[in-house]
Order: sequence, then structure tokens, then C-alpha cells
Amino acid sequence: MSAPVRIGVIGLGTVGQGVVRLLKNNAAEITRRVGRPVVVTDAATRTPGRARDCNLDGVQMWDDAGRLVREADVDIVVELIGGTGVARELTLAAIARGKPLVTANKALLAEAGNEIFAAAADADGVIGFEAAVAGGIPIIKAIREGLAGNVIDGIAGIINGTCNYILTQMALRGQSFTDALADAQRLGYAEADPTFDVEGVDAAHKLAILAALAFGMPLAFDDIAIEGITAVTPQDIEIAQVFGYRIKLLGIAKRGGDGVELRVHPTLIPDDTLLAKVDGVLNAVVVHGNAVGEVGFYGRGAGGDATASAVVADILDIARALSAEARHSVPALAFQPDALRPLPVISIRDAQSAFYLRLRVADEPGVLSQITAILAAHEISVEAILQREPRGGEDATIALITSVIAEHRFGDALEEMQKLPFVRSGAMRLRVEKFD
Amino acid sequence: MSAPVRIGVIGLGTVGQGVVRLLKNNAAEITRRVGRPVVVTDAATRTPGRARDCNLDGVQMWDDAGRLVREADVDIVVELIGGTGVARELTLAAIARGKPLVTANKALLAEAGNEIFAAAADADGVIGFEAAVAGGIPIIKAIREGLAGNVIDGIAGIINGTCNYILTQMALRGQSFTDALADAQRLGYAEADPTFDVEGVDAAHKLAILAALAFGMPLAFDDIAIEGITAVTPQDIEIAQVFGYRIKLLGIAKRGGDGVELRVHPTLIPDDTLLAKVDGVLNAVVVHGNAVGEVGFYGRGAGGDATASAVVADILDIARALSAEARHSVPALAFQPDALRPLPVISIRDAQSAFYLRLRVADEPGVLSQITAILAAHEISVEAILQREPRGGEDATIALITSVIAEHRFGDALEEMQKLPFVRSGAMRLRVEKFD
Repeated sequence: MSAPVRIGVIGLGTVGQGVVRLLKNNAAEITRRVGRPVVVTDAATRTPGRARDCNLDGVQMWDDAGRLVREADVDIVVELIGGTGVARELTLAAIARGKPLVTANKALLAEAGNEIFAAAADADGVIGFEAAVAGGIPIIKAIREGLAGNVIDGIAGIINGTCNYILTQMALRGQSFTDALADAQRLGYAEADPTFDVEGVDAAHKLAILAALAFGMPLAFDDIAIEGITAVTPQDIEIAQVFGYRIKLLGIAKRGGDGVELRVHPTLIPDDTLLAKVDGVLNAVVVHGNAVGEVGFYGRGAGGDATASAVVADILDIARALSAEARHSVPALAFQPDALRPLPVISIRDAQSAFYLRLRVADEPGVLSQITAILAAHEISVEAILQREPRGGEDATIALITSVIAEHRFGDALEEMQKLPFVRSGAMRLRVEKFD
Repeated sequence: MSAPVRIGVIGLGTVGQGVVRLLKNNAAEITRRVGRPVVVTDAATRTPGRARDCNLDGVQMWDDAGRLVREADVDIVVELIGGTGVARELTLAAIARGKPLVTANKALLAEAGNEIFAAAADADGVIGFEAAVAGGIPIIKAIREGLAGNVIDGIAGIINGTCNYILTQMALRGQSFTDALADAQRLGYAEADPTFDVEGVDAAHKLAILAALAFGMPLAFDDIAIEGITAVTPQDIEIAQVFGYRIKLLGIAKRGGDGVELRVHPTLIPDDTLLAKVDGVLNAVVVHGNAVGEVGFYGRGAGGDATASAVVADILDIARALSAEARHSVPALAFQPDALRPLPVISIRDAQSAFYLRLRVADEPGVLSQITAILAAHEISVEAILQREPRGGEDATIALITSVIAEHRFGDALEEMQKLPFVRSGAMRLRVEKFD
């Protein structure tokens, strides 16, 4: 086993705790992916005494983040304090010291990114910022690498979960902006001062980053036209629905004329598009490439664990690059070749799911009760049932959805049903999955 | 400018032509991303005389693919002939010669992947196969890198466009399986012999690859329980809708008990999930990670250009790795630092879109005609309009959606409208985007 990759985390708020937790909880799999353990060895916080939802045993604590950056014996620095003041200094200091840096700080990159990326290029430095846009959705990597063969024509995204939650509540419950905002604050989906979110500034920070990646241009936050959602009324949302639209706060970057359009504003989008169906705090980004056409991504745009997922993805990219020559930095099958493990594949007969069953039956009394009696005898409950009278022919149809059960148990019940004299041949059985 | 990365393409069918076209058409941007040109220098085909939709000027043509693999002076070999016979030999030959290989061949990887990946690991070789699953969606990279911090709990995917098209047509038009299949064949969405698609084998090939990446297990195609869509009837689809479900062919891989479940079958899923709304030939994959929660991806799962997008993404990953040390193989902002170009940001006043307008107006005759007259005078047409009588108060509401127009022209018309004596203050104006 090679030596661990040592991580220094600056900031132990929601995301910082998530990163510590994730690297610890998933350590075994991460080692199998990277080929080396990846361990938080150092952390800096201004509130060392605060109770935290992560295990800091064995972690060297620093109360001066600047000293951690300048002195700690770490391989990668992770900046999670946010803001554009101290964070900027720490970032530039990490670059100057030659430490690869991972950040979730969209405000910093949008506003000082040109300075920071230039400093990194000069100093031969590495910066990961997957977590800066759309939380856990790996959208930075998708645009930078997964769609790299395309000329990107445009991007449209729901990239502020606070606004999407508020607009969704206004649509579903007819709430006013003010009431929906208050609910969002109560649930922790909006800050006490929600200005950056509801005025569209946070979405514009993210859009500046996406546009740079898509078009190969410097960060142009100051050129983005920004309009927030505070003026949207329930009446507008309702009329939009009458017209066949939903209202979403979108960040839009697209080529046009001899330049690009960069704008953030509440937008009516047709209600049959997938983007229109992304509700609540979810984020979603649609990218249009000249070869791939439209590709869409959705997932949690905020929250400690989802954002930590993106931070750790960057950490692991860098850890792999520190550990191997370029062509082998990512193993073909995601895990190191010697870390692949056969897993028992569970027989489909033991796989649990709900079942849909459709039977053709003679149209006579007592049919339903005998069928449901068999199900009950096998301890299978019925979630939904439909019986239809014969149409034209002489047979009736019974269709039902069961509770979740192993296939072999359902199969036993079905076999009994098929022996009933009034059940015709040709039963149809399909699985039902609910992903919850 | 550094020397070009030289690509040898084996197979010039739909995807092969797409790759040649893409590398040529997007050459300028690709060079800015990679830092070196990436050029198809060699190609092999069994039908050299056939007319093709790509420019092969300057490409060395080989009629013996084996000779191209063994002898051509290329940096990367791209295998696009499909099948598991010759393709397997060519793949192993490329690995033996130490050439990085890119393939879209899911059947080969699902059935011979354990042999191929082991050979690659032994020979220090590189294999890219983003195009093998879900066409243009960068799902391999997302699971392998973007979600690498997660323990993956499960994956569910619509990963066969032919089946999804057929099931969608059956749902929308009440067609039988046979009729929908015939339509799909006529449109080129299904092969003359559709067995591999409609029986679920193709989806199982892809699922075997996804499961290996997600769980760090060898490819286990033979252990997948497979059920196709041929027995699904319009009646089942209709009853499922009554119950609140859609029927999709899903590939499902999830942890359960002390192993994994691997299965492909038509599945009822709740109609309010995003997966249920992915229609036609689109593919979609939902991944559940223990940190990120649910992340979803959708896009074109087949077609020359979309699949070429994924092939080229792999080519560029390898090209970048050949050109730089690991930590710099991918530039932070997607393009090489010296290739960033400022782009003029078009003023929001010149940005084109449709507009939603809501006005409060006095409830008197002639209002609508004067407003529409102003729009007509500015050559703005009205796509939808709604007028509502006063509710409680004394003002009526007019809401409308315009044709696509530059903001400043819409603004001029709005200014005139606001001067009308019967128009109250507080007009609401929002943009409408249709993404078509």
C-alpha cells in the first residue's frame, strides 16, 4: 500500500464536515479507486470548539488557516470558507506554495477567477472547482472533458436551488414570493439574508464559470445581465401554466451574432421539457453541443453531502494524478485493476420488487375474491387493482399492483392463480420500481 | 504548435464517419482544448469505394484493419466495427502493440471485457469506452470520476433507444409492439433484425459495463437476468397509466443482501419521476450515490454524431494525457490557458427571445385593440393572449406571449403601451425560451 494522500481542509461548515465524513466513511472504496488512501490530516476552523457532525480524531487542527496553507505537510488544500476576501488570499497562497487546490467557492472564481487561474497557470498549479457549480452534479467535468469534442452552442441551467424551491412552492401552492421565501428560510434552503440567491447573483457566479468552460473565454461575471425572482407573482406563474409554460430562474449562456449572450432571469419554458419538471431544490443543466445535441444533468445543487461529493471527486482526480503517469491516472474500470472484486449476483428469483399482474379471467362471480385470497395466503398485499368488464369478447381483465416481494414468492402465488379454472392462459407480469 | 496527435479509425460506418467529421469540423476548438491538433491520419474499411458523409482527403486508407493496428504510425487506435470476433482480435492486437484504444463496442466489452481489461492492465495499456454506453451522455466518466467519492448504491437506466422509442409510440399512439417496431425500422431506429435490442441483450451489455464501474466488480454479463419488451401490450401500457405509471425498459444494478442485483426488464415506474418522462430514442441514467443522492443524466443514446461525441471525448482524454504530465492533462478552464479568448458579450438589449407580458388595464372597450395595434406597428406578433375580467377590483388583466424579438424592440413597444391612459403601472415582463 502506497503512502496516503494528505488533505488539508480549510473551513468546517456544512460542506467541510461533509468532506471529512465522506473521506472517512467511504475510505475503503476510495482506496480501491485511487490505489492509495486519501486522508484528512489537517483542518483549519475559526470555531474549534463547536460540535461537528464528523470525526476529527487524528486530524491536526489549525486556528490560523494561513498557517495551514503555508506550513502544513499536506498534498492538497481544500478551501471551503467561502467569500472573496480571506479565501482569495488563501487560494493565491496555496498556488504560490505549489499545492493543488480544491474549492467550492463560486463567488471567488466568478469575481477573481481570471487572476486566480492566471496565477495557477504561471505557477504550474492545479485547481479543482467541481463543487462550485450545481453541487453534486459533475457538470464541470462533463463540459470540460465529457463533451470536449463538441463546439458548445449553449447552456441553460437551473443553478440556484433556493430560487427553484421558491418558484416551485409558488407554483404548487399558490404562495406569494414572500411566504415561499419564509418557508425556504425555515427549512434551511435560504439564507437569513437571501439577497445573493433571490436576486440572481449566485446563479450568475455559476453561469460565469460555465460560460468560460463552454466557450473558452475568460470569466465575465460583470457582463452578465441579471434579474432575480422577487417580482414574480403567483398570478404570473398561474397564467404561464395556462399558456403551457413553467417559470424557472435560468442561467443562459449561448452563442449569438459574433459573441455570446450571458443572462440570468426568470424564464418561461414549455412545460413538456425536462427542465420544466425539475422541481424543489434540485439543480439541472442542459448543454447543447454541435455533435451531441442536447444533454441534460440533474441532481442536488446544495447540501453538505452532495457538495462534498463534488469536492471529493476533485480531490480524487488530483490524488490519482499525483499517483500515476497521466495515461494511467484513471483506471479503465474506475477501480484499480487489482482492486476489482467479484460480487455475488443475486438470483432474479430473490430480487425484491413490486409486481404488476394482468390476468384474463372468465366473467363470473367470485373471481376477484379467489384471486385476492391467494395473494393474502401468500402475504402479498395489493396496492392497486382494476377490474374491467369484457369488451367484445367474453373475458374480463383484472390488473393489480402488489407490495414489494421476492419474485419467487410472487411466482408461487401466480402459479396457484393460474390453476384456477376461470383464469385464462397468458398472464402478464411486470416489475414495478419506485426508487425511493 | 506541437505535433498532431494521430488517430487511426477502424470502421467507417455511421459512427466512424461521425468521428472523422467531428475531428475535422471542430478542429480549431479541439486544438485549443488539447494544446495540439488531433487528426485522423489513417482509416480502415472493408468498403473503400463507398460514398461517405465525411472528408477523407489526406487520410491513409487501409483495407486490412489488422495491418493498420500492427503497422500504422498512429498514436491512438479507434475500433468502430462492432461485433465480438474480429473486433476482439484487433483490440488485443492494439493493446499488445501498446497503442491506446478507443471503442464504442459494448458487446465486445460485456462479453470479453474481463480478458481485454486484464490484457490492458498487464501491458500497461489504455482503453476508452465512453461511447459504449448511452451514446453521447458522458456517463462512464461521471461514474468513474465525477461520482468517485461515493459508494454507488444503484443505477437505473433507459439505455436502449430502440426499446424506448417503441414503448413511447405504444404509449402515445396506442400502437401494438409489432407496428411500433415496424415504424422504428422504417425510421432507422431499429435494425432489420431487432432481436438484440428488443430482447434486452443490448441493454444488458451496457448494464454489465455500468455495474463494473459502479461496484468495482468484473464484467458479469452472463449473470444478468434479461427480459425484453416483445410481450408488452398497449393494454398493459394503458392500465399502467391508469395506475399512475409508465412502462420503460430499464437496466437496473443495485446492491442488495451481500451482493448485487443485475437485471434488464420492462418496468413500471411512477409517472412523476424524471425517468418516466424520457421519451423516444433518448437515453437516461439515474445513479444513486451514498453522498450525492440521486443524479440523473439524459441525452441521445445513439446516432453517428452523438456517439462520435463520446468517442472523441475519449480520444481527447488520451491525447491530453499523451501531451502533459498527469496533473496538467486537463486544463482548469477546459481550454489551454493561452487559448482562452475574450468574446464580446452581447448586450441584453440585443438578446433575442420571446416575451411574456402582463398588464393591468382599465376594464373599458378598445383596450385590446389599441395594445395589439402597438405590437403590430412594431412588427411583433402575438403567440398567445389571455384577457381576464376584473376579479373584485376594477382592473382587468391582459397577458400575452410574443414572437421572438430583440429586447430593445420589445421595450420600445412596451414604453408606448405604458403611455396609454388605461394601462396601469406595474407591467410584468418575463422572457420565454423554447430551446428549439
